[in-house]
Amino acid sequence: MHTVIVGGGVIGLATAWRALAQGLAVTVVDPEPASRASYASAGMLPPANEQLYDDEPLRRLYLASRDRYPSFVAELEEVSGRSTGHRRDGVLDVALDAAAVADLDRAHRFHKAHGIRTEALTAEECRVYEPRFAPSVRGGLLAPDDGAVDPRRLTAALLAAVERLGGTLVTDRVTDVLIEGRATGVRLAGGGTVTGDRTVLAAGCWTHLLGGLPPGVVPEIRPVKGQILRLRSEEPFLHRTTRGLAGGSAVYLVPRADGELVVGATYEERGYDTTVTAGGLAELLDKARAVLPEVTGLAFAEVSAALRPGSPDDRPLIGATSVPDLLLATGHFRIGVQLCAVTADALATVLSGDELPDAVRPFSPLRGDGVGTH
Amino acid sequence: MHTVIVGGGVIGLATAWRALAQGLAVTVVDPEPASRASYASAGMLPPANEQLYDDEPLRRLYLASRDRYPSFVAELEEVSGRSTGHRRDGVLDVALDAAAVADLDRAHRFHKAHGIRTEALTAEECRVYEPRFAPSVRGGLLAPDDGAVDPRRLTAALLAAVERLGGTLVTDRVTDVLIEGRATGVRLAGGGTVTGDRTVLAAGCWTHLLGGLPPGVVPEIRPVKGQILRLRSEEPFLHRTTRGLAGGSAVYLVPRADGELVVGATYEERGYDTTVTAGGLAELLDKARAVLPEVTGLAFAEVSAALRPGSPDDRPLIGATSVPDLLLATGHFRIGVQLCAVTADALATVLSGDELPDAVRPFSPLRGDGVGTH
Repeated sequence: MHTVIVGGGVIGLATAWRALAQGLAVTVVDPEPASRASYASAGMLPPANEQLYDDEPLRRLYLASRDRYPSFVAELEEVSGRSTGHRRDGVLDVALDAAAVADLDRAHRFHKAHGIRTEALTAEECRVYEPRFAPSVRGGLLAPDDGAVDPRRLTAALLAAVERLGGTLVTDRVTDVLIEGRATGVRLAGGGTVTGDRTVLAAGCWTHLLGGLPPGVVPEIRPVKGQILRLRSEEPFLHRTTRGLAGGSAVYLVPRADGELVVGATYEERGYDTTVTAGGLAELLDKARAVLPEVTGLAFAEVSAALRPGSPDDRPLIGATSVPDLLLATGHFRIGVQLCAVTADALATVLSGDELPDAVRPFSPLRGDGVGTH
Repeated sequence: MHTVIVGGGVIGLATAWRALAQGLAVTVVDPEPASRASYASAGMLPPANEQLYDDEPLRRLYLASRDRYPSFVAELEEVSGRSTGHRRDGVLDVALDAAAVADLDRAHRFHKAHGIRTEALTAEECRVYEPRFAPSVRGGLLAPDDGAVDPRRLTAALLAAVERLGGTLVTDRVTDVLIEGRATGVRLAGGGTVTGDRTVLAAGCWTHLLGGLPPGVVPEIRPVKGQILRLRSEEPFLHRTTRGLAGGSAVYLVPRADGELVVGATYEERGYDTTVTAGGLAELLDKARAVLPEVTGLAFAEVSAALRPGSPDDRPLIGATSVPDLLLATGHFRIGVQLCAVTADALATVLSGDELPDAVRPFSPLRGDGVGTH
């Protein structure tokens, strides 16, 4: 049983690895694997925000992924022989204004009601965790079971694992999905084809633009631009992943063990534009300074922009489509890194001939809730 | 008569070109020509600020260089066959607070008294020149005879002219100046030597660190770090070089014909550190936004840092030292690009056996005003 996976981002690579681990043959096609949204991503594995928690099925998916993450990463690190930079030392949300204090209070009550561990912190307690916090930090919420992963290390480890387990990587661009009653593979920009028993489309916001797709089978995947800044210091500057909340918006600050500090990210709907702008950079610097004034002393390392894949309802699309042997794994919006483990397991299950796991069934492309697939 | 020039920045290269034009043989030694302060520089040829005007000899040098610039550039462009991006369409200073309004008023009166053309503008008149100015722009001063040059094009043209006129470029690092009663050349990191009848040190803030120099002959040249930001748009976003003045500090915005907008620069005394920092970037973005809020829409192109060469009294050191056949051309601090023409002419004059021109004599390394040379 040979599976062709279109897209070598974190979703495509994780799916490839899990399918290989189940004994399937896999070919991943991507001209530049791990170069788009996965490469730009901060890799925060955050406390589910209220938006997530308003959505019961998404909350269940999120919790399933969070519980799966440590074993997923442990196995991946063992198979690949590489670190993923995974850390599970908590995520700290801090409020910078009264509205954010109220938001955290609501979130805390919500977590309590649903048996999710979070700990409310006073401003003073926040500063014990992180003495560099701005005086305007008014209080916080610690989610001790959360953390972060380094997506660049994660995808490098996935690539190594795919290679280790005998997967094939084709570094070409897919122009068309081949469909003759059922999906039979893909045509490449270079002229050739890759055929398989099953075809998985995991091409992010480019998925619906692939040629050969019958109308309505793949909904439009909206690109949501994110600009993201990377700073650097000799020693880690911040002790744990932190999210600063103010004025209804958030900045996240993800520290790495090697001294990198990732500051993310803007949300912009500007089509497929990936220009880094003065305004994007200024927004990130302004927000980071509001939480941690001393970031001004850190070295500038990199600024980049990438496109999150947003489905019509901003929920992922995971599983079989109405075209036989054509599957989807896209639309993860801003939580692709976070959901890669549970997404990959679900796809591997389906590719092995079983049903979608319960937690994933609400995200079937055939869910028929007006997402646009039929 | 063979001259060895240590340092291939704008001063060293301009000196090499003018010496070659006078029929002298020249070797320039630099591991990476045009890569340091000259490469980072914005190239503003600005209205002399008050600090300059307090210093009568520096003012005369500045005016001599300004008057020389157009013919210098015209000849260079003809010899090299390359554009330097020189423009002389005026520099606009704008005041963003009451203190800056008063400063511009004083400067205007000073210019009038000394026969220098500048035109006072109301806030409304400023906005006619540049509709994108922030509402906080309170007034301005236009110096119609000033402008800018593109230092990257300028140094590329100088390199081409040096090559065209038969100059030699040695891309190695100088470890020592060879002195045996008189200067006889330099020793290279690669092991060889380059000998000459005269040796000119134009190595910016590294000049006094060259080996072999007797104590006191070359004063300490202080590195003054500047971080500088480059933005980009399809069309030029700003019509002419602009300096925004507020709170006693300035930001300059230098537009290029190709859509580049250079935003400069910080002044930091941090030794030889050239780290680009979040704080430097934030300062430049904050100040640029204060003058032109719409810069937020421009694409980020580059951020860099380099070291201005500051002499003990922040005035250039041009001419012979107390060691026979050893000359200096450094210490230009922030006006190296601006003063390269007059500096190069003066050095070429001395190398040809004549006296330093009158305008340059106050900047002789032998000026004996406590600069530290003897």
